[in-house]
Amino acid sequence: MPPIIREHTSHQFEHELAEVRNLVLHMGGVVEEQVKNAVPALIKIDGDLAEKVLSRDSEVNRLELEIDEACTKILALRQPTASDLRMVTTISKTIADLERIGDEAEKIGKNAANLVMAERNKGIFKSLKYMSEHVISLLRQALDAFARMDVEAAVKVAGLDNEIDDEYDGIMRQLITYMMEDPRSIKASMDVIWTARSLERIGDHATNICEYVVYIVKGKDVRHKSWKQVEKDYL
Amino acid sequence: MPPIIREHTSHQFEHELAEVRNLVLHMGGVVEEQVKNAVPALIKIDGDLAEKVLSRDSEVNRLELEIDEACTKILALRQPTASDLRMVTTISKTIADLERIGDEAEKIGKNAANLVMAERNKGIFKSLKYMSEHVISLLRQALDAFARMDVEAAVKVAGLDNEIDDEYDGIMRQLITYMMEDPRSIKASMDVIWTARSLERIGDHATNICEYVVYIVKGKDVRHKSWKQVEKDYL
Repeated sequence: MPPIIREHTSHQFEHELAEVRNLVLHMGGVVEEQVKNAVPALIKIDGDLAEKVLSRDSEVNRLELEIDEACTKILALRQPTASDLRMVTTISKTIADLERIGDEAEKIGKNAANLVMAERNKGIFKSLKYMSEHVISLLRQALDAFARMDVEAAVKVAGLDNEIDDEYDGIMRQLITYMMEDPRSIKASMDVIWTARSLERIGDHATNICEYVVYIVKGKDVRHKSWKQVEKDYL
Repeated sequence: MPPIIREHTSHQFEHELAEVRNLVLHMGGVVEEQVKNAVPALIKIDGDLAEKVLSRDSEVNRLELEIDEACTKILALRQPTASDLRMVTTISKTIADLERIGDEAEKIGKNAANLVMAERNKGIFKSLKYMSEHVISLLRQALDAFARMDVEAAVKVAGLDNEIDDEYDGIMRQLITYMMEDPRSIKASMDVIWTARSLERIGDHATNICEYVVYIVKGKDVRHKSWKQVEKDYL
């Protein structure tokens, strides 16, 4: 291939790759907004906000399919190698996690509708609010690390997920005590349980995105690795 | 490239692709066994079986990384197109679902350990046993459809997931009634709830695998589509 065409192709390719990355960040923004709307919908029992979460679902699904198709096209036509190839294959994983975050937000939004009539326990709602703020911050930071392909930030952010798991365990303990004390609260408590569980899952998916950043930039797959070792290697 | 070398390369490529597919089927076999061991571990409260589930986890994780690496290598060196390309990119999704099925089996196995001391409700355990049998059968059939790349079977199998969702809803209703009647059972009941939830998730992941089969063979992404329409198109 003469150099001039190669350059043109490479420029074109970079443009396509940048476009796909922008779509991923856009998708990240949409699910982040879903999560942000879902929890106040629950805490304030706001049906309109809950509705807003549900209405974005089809957009998220459409973006997942569109991005996946773009990635397959790039693989077929551009045959990327090295870090570009890692970028394309990992974007496909990233959007699967984003789509699942959107699903969890949707579940939280649906629970909000169920809770409209429920009695409320102030202590538990406070804990849930704190946990949700931490999860939203974790997701925000994970998406930032992805946008900047910042390995150090990604490793730091993934380390925060332990705290969220602890908060989740705490809420579960609170809820079990509450249900035992007041069995009439069991049905409503179950909705809180599912919400806490969804928040915990969102934390896990955000952590996955952090792991992908390390893989794309460093070429090292850190899934299933001891996080202490990963922190030692990259911080 | 002279035809003889092209033929050699293509033969080599087919061999590599077949090898990766075999690895996926092997991984599928391992997680299927995990699920098969996990539920009797819970129903019979058998610590040895539970241990067996947990011990396979590292093998599943290793296979996931190994297969993903093999796929990336094929993409870089063989630059497959059309259905071969779909096969490679979709295998990467498939093993993510398989890994999550393994995770859910592990959670069930861990709950089994917690349940050793728990009081048991025969009715609920029976429902759980039925549900687990259906989930195991769904997973088996999904893996079969994947092994044979059988679109018709895949579409039929995915349609069965609704029944599992119904069983899950039934168990939840039973459990909430049980907990309200006997609040001392709440803690033990929560373990049953997590188990039913894990089984329901395994059904979802098995359904994803069915959708991938349609995509690989037909080139049509049926995720997020109305399943009635998909059945109409492919049955």
